[in-house]
Amino acid sequence: MATQGQVITCKAAVAWEPNKPLVIEDVQVAPPQAGEVRIKILFTALCHTDAYTWSGQDPEGLFPCILGHEAAGIVESVGEGVTEVQPGDHVIPCYQAECRECKFCKSGKTNLCGKVRAATGVGVMMSDRKSRFSVNGTPIYHFMGTSTFSQYTVVHDVSVAKIDPAAPLDKVCLLGCGVPTGLGAVWNTAKVESGSIVAVFGLGTVGLAVAEGAKAAGASRIIGIDIDSKKFDRAKDFGVTEFVNPKDHEKPIQQVLVDLTDGGVDYSFECIGNVSVMRAALECCHKGWGTSVIVGVAASGQEISTRPFQLVTGRVWKGTAFGGFKSRSQVPWLVDKYMKKEIKVDEYITHNLTLGEINKAFDLLHEGGCLRCVLEVHT
Amino acid sequence: MATQGQVITCKAAVAWEPNKPLVIEDVQVAPPQAGEVRIKILFTALCHTDAYTWSGQDPEGLFPCILGHEAAGIVESVGEGVTEVQPGDHVIPCYQAECRECKFCKSGKTNLCGKVRAATGVGVMMSDRKSRFSVNGTPIYHFMGTSTFSQYTVVHDVSVAKIDPAAPLDKVCLLGCGVPTGLGAVWNTAKVESGSIVAVFGLGTVGLAVAEGAKAAGASRIIGIDIDSKKFDRAKDFGVTEFVNPKDHEKPIQQVLVDLTDGGVDYSFECIGNVSVMRAALECCHKGWGTSVIVGVAASGQEISTRPFQLVTGRVWKGTAFGGFKSRSQVPWLVDKYMKKEIKVDEYITHNLTLGEINKAFDLLHEGGCLRCVLEVHT
Repeated sequence: MATQGQVITCKAAVAWEPNKPLVIEDVQVAPPQAGEVRIKILFTALCHTDAYTWSGQDPEGLFPCILGHEAAGIVESVGEGVTEVQPGDHVIPCYQAECRECKFCKSGKTNLCGKVRAATGVGVMMSDRKSRFSVNGTPIYHFMGTSTFSQYTVVHDVSVAKIDPAAPLDKVCLLGCGVPTGLGAVWNTAKVESGSIVAVFGLGTVGLAVAEGAKAAGASRIIGIDIDSKKFDRAKDFGVTEFVNPKDHEKPIQQVLVDLTDGGVDYSFECIGNVSVMRAALECCHKGWGTSVIVGVAASGQEISTRPFQLVTGRVWKGTAFGGFKSRSQVPWLVDKYMKKEIKVDEYITHNLTLGEINKAFDLLHEGGCLRCVLEVHT
Repeated sequence: MATQGQVITCKAAVAWEPNKPLVIEDVQVAPPQAGEVRIKILFTALCHTDAYTWSGQDPEGLFPCILGHEAAGIVESVGEGVTEVQPGDHVIPCYQAECRECKFCKSGKTNLCGKVRAATGVGVMMSDRKSRFSVNGTPIYHFMGTSTFSQYTVVHDVSVAKIDPAAPLDKVCLLGCGVPTGLGAVWNTAKVESGSIVAVFGLGTVGLAVAEGAKAAGASRIIGIDIDSKKFDRAKDFGVTEFVNPKDHEKPIQQVLVDLTDGGVDYSFECIGNVSVMRAALECCHKGWGTSVIVGVAASGQEISTRPFQLVTGRVWKGTAFGGFKSRSQVPWLVDKYMKKEIKVDEYITHNLTLGEINKAFDLLHEGGCLRCVLEVHT
């Protein structure tokens, strides 16, 4: 390609400082170095983690930065030594890397590859600990190793999932975060069995994906809990069979659920990021075997607590990141499942805008009616 | 037997009120009713749970009562409908019942049988919600459904494990609580694999049994943590390979362990009952897969806490009661393992006294040198 080896100047939404509107800037994107891949981002969605860092509450948030981590695009060029993708490949950038070589990848017990974390955690690339983004010479930090609110981004090769080129990128971009997180929490982390009773706290994208995953796993009851009763109708389409609004009850929600289920649920999933709800999600589990999975991300510094008796009497407390999916290996598999109509994706997309309208998209994220807003990046 | 169907008057150690010395009394023990078994207790040990309830800190503790739950004896008589044991059988009373019929027993997921809990939790027998013990007409509460600090006790038939009559009762009485709790935490709850790195917090009987279980499971490193360095020599005999005294370090103990193990342990076990240590035990686990099991019993009202990030990044928080062993089915199996010299029991017995010396035995429990004190009940 004509751009290979060159700096590309393109549009990106820059977060110059916390809690201030993003600004569409002309950004310089350096060529990929060894082990790096430059991707033309075609579509990106927004997720609450973007909003959390943008808000300034994330103590690890670095500014100025380019946010965004749920996207799809096409490889523009690759750095030295990159063998698994080449220009033209359709890809999904993955904030959770998979190097297949580190202690984590080789353990067979986790998807939390550690190879590039020390760099992505501080907004730079691993080889030279620098950013590939700048605006008139001012470096702009990367975010989650993906920075997809840009027409071009540079990521580590261990963070790129090559997918079926027939897949519609304006849809499968969602397989970069929220939908796999929910499905995987059920399939990989909890391993819900057929006939189980499941509780899902929070009926946003992740919670609905949990419901969808639980339905696919054969759960007999899927109880959705949300303080916005308007969400129930839509939730039915994703598999929720019963709805409980904590506002309708005097009793603590864990007690309401224990009463509803003759002793508690088999599996619960917290998809909000609220530490009080995390406690309720654990305590609504059945004595002896109930397992609660924390999926939501709590604000920094907050803590979960419970009586140890809850665990001594057989409940299990777990968490999940990216649903336990190994990104490079399994995102393509999820794309294939979508192509075979075995998992939903389109149904999570409630809004479509352009990159230039990204601040409007952030506003939408806080509205109950919005699940995912997909931005067209090149217009 | 001559005593069958009769009230038996015998010696028992009665806790008339919290935190006051037990009193050896002449106690009337009523005959077993339907579904009940009267046992002549030959040997009983003391456990920290007895001391906890005796101290008055247990809000569910009822007085006056007869404590004790780690013992062995011989069936004296049985009530109507009892078919699985008969007079003369050698047995271990089990505070955790196993009815094989309730939702819990049938689940295949837990040992926490629920059949008699509503009665044993409030110190009475299920059939008539009354006690079988009295002193001159004053009812004395049962404790944990076992009350083994008595020459005769009455228990539910679902709480009696029939064992090999060749087994020495002055030894295998320990298989009623502490030793199985530690072994089972490793084998049943954590399922430690060969090659694992294990941390054990607290090197009393339960902690040493965890070490023994971990060694049998093939753990590559077994790190014992205790604030009493004198315990280390003895701990080596049970499999502990390294010793860490938190008092020797400035850093939090979880950080010391993470540093010692290149990222954390695979499995940790809290065998003290201290909620701060429970947190440390979780947080010293390796990211991605480390599993922490709460074995110790915390004081009422205390809570555990941590950052949810600990779980989201792959650590698992669990607990165990009686090591997950199904009591009636598996205590006899543990006795057989002892008879085949596959598990230790004798090595946990550091003191032998008589029932009349029980207050001295309680004092010993708080000394670092004491693991288990076995009391001869009929002297």
